[in-house]
Amino acid sequence: MIYTVTLNPTIDRLLFLEGTLTKGKNNRLEKIAYDIGGKGHHGSYAMNQQKVKNQALGFCGTTNENKLEKILADKDIQHDFVEVYGKATRESYVILEAEVGGSILITEKGFRVTDYDSELLYEKIESKVQKDDIVLIAGSLPPGFELNDLEDLLNRLKKIGCFIACDLSGEALKKAVEIGVNFIKPNRFEIQELIPSEANFLDRLRELSKKIDYVIVSLGKDGSICSHAGELLQVSTPIVGLVNDTGAGDCFVGTFLASFSLKKPLKECLSLASACAADHIQYSDSTTFSIKAARKLQKKVTIQTLT
Amino acid sequence: MIYTVTLNPTIDRLLFLEGTLTKGKNNRLEKIAYDIGGKGHHGSYAMNQQKVKNQALGFCGTTNENKLEKILADKDIQHDFVEVYGKATRESYVILEAEVGGSILITEKGFRVTDYDSELLYEKIESKVQKDDIVLIAGSLPPGFELNDLEDLLNRLKKIGCFIACDLSGEALKKAVEIGVNFIKPNRFEIQELIPSEANFLDRLRELSKKIDYVIVSLGKDGSICSHAGELLQVSTPIVGLVNDTGAGDCFVGTFLASFSLKKPLKECLSLASACAADHIQYSDSTTFSIKAARKLQKKVTIQTLT
Repeated sequence: MIYTVTLNPTIDRLLFLEGTLTKGKNNRLEKIAYDIGGKGHHGSYAMNQQKVKNQALGFCGTTNENKLEKILADKDIQHDFVEVYGKATRESYVILEAEVGGSILITEKGFRVTDYDSELLYEKIESKVQKDDIVLIAGSLPPGFELNDLEDLLNRLKKIGCFIACDLSGEALKKAVEIGVNFIKPNRFEIQELIPSEANFLDRLRELSKKIDYVIVSLGKDGSICSHAGELLQVSTPIVGLVNDTGAGDCFVGTFLASFSLKKPLKECLSLASACAADHIQYSDSTTFSIKAARKLQKKVTIQTLT
Repeated sequence: MIYTVTLNPTIDRLLFLEGTLTKGKNNRLEKIAYDIGGKGHHGSYAMNQQKVKNQALGFCGTTNENKLEKILADKDIQHDFVEVYGKATRESYVILEAEVGGSILITEKGFRVTDYDSELLYEKIESKVQKDDIVLIAGSLPPGFELNDLEDLLNRLKKIGCFIACDLSGEALKKAVEIGVNFIKPNRFEIQELIPSEANFLDRLRELSKKIDYVIVSLGKDGSICSHAGELLQVSTPIVGLVNDTGAGDCFVGTFLASFSLKKPLKECLSLASACAADHIQYSDSTTFSIKAARKLQKKVTIQTLT
């Protein structure tokens, strides 16, 4: 079983412009759509595509819960949230220009959670997670959930002995490395921050790998590098037409962990994850991809051992 | 009495960014605020500042009516809308970057109104408006409210014999000129569209003035030109620090019509309108200005007769 934990969930409001975004003019919308946001939720969607059982945990606000529930039901995402009364799950604005690839992302901070809310989440997690499970903690920390709360959560998970994957950034990522988790997905810049030495990039990565079982460094369109058990694997990304890259990294992580939970060989996990993320960025929303189309793209993914 | 008619109202969602808007990164929000949108509503707010009695008319959706009502109450805007059941008043997104003047505006299309809704609006207007009243029709036409509906509305107002001011654009503006109203506020480009001749700009404006009592051409930071009774007046705009220019034109029109209804001399109407609009763009929202501060700025406004 996999659990995804989204501490600061969001509803993505996709704003489809009639043209390109221009200051000083009225930018008219062609249409609006909604999608789930939050890295953990995106991960759950990706896991579903391989039919790997998973449940989304985390916080949600009650004032717009119907809206979130509707989207989760549409995407068939099983979930069990700690409801924070009187608060609204934040929204993220994803601006999509006509005939221009990529997107412009604007995010709200999210509602403040209390120690009581956090305690409810810990209880829920401890009542569910078993030693053989995988837990993905992904996305930003909401106001009120501080680094010491993250430390508390990670220590509880370590006590259970499950596989802990973290898709975090900044200080939260540093904390995850300090505590020692099983999987992280930093970018190139974050590697430099995590291992501040004079060594070159690959040596820094090797250094980091002594503490973390699986380190996958995302390099955007240049693919990724996975460091595991003393081996560095460079994974390419198939070339596709970019529509909206929001959620591409989450798609990668979700697919990787699903394949990993199915005990697939590491190279198979990596190539499918790269292919699914590439397929995803051809869609306009934050989650969708086709596992069938991805399996075709997977044949184009190359994996090279770096020395 | 002045009536403002906003056919396609909107709630402005002001998105205050922590930095400048950048594609490919997460643009975090410092805060969110709401304001009334819709050119007629902005006009009503401006009229209130001179304590000129007015009422906002038009359509509104019922599903988010509480939100609209709250903002209208905060701004003390008297109103009597035709409620369109099961629809939501559209939102406009006003993106404000940190330490950068101006704003980026994104607008939804708005809900579709039916002939029945339009008929209810006509009845409401005909039951209220008297010969001595001023009616301002401002903003875009909602889906379902076509040019022939606008023609119908204008003809009914002409039958009453009230003063008709139109702050419209594109085909709706052309229709207002064709029917013959008392006041329009085109921009320089629209003058060329309305009078497609070989004549120079001022001659075209003179030509247009034969049909329309008051034509005020907005020239942005270069002020405006008012054409009335064969005279062309160039009005300067005081130099101020730009924060958000959304609603500046509406502030000008609302202030002008309020002064006009108080039978102030034309030059007084124009200089106060220019000063209020200038004061307004120093605020971050779509409506606010200080009539007291504007009266000081008014002294800096110059008005020159063009020959």
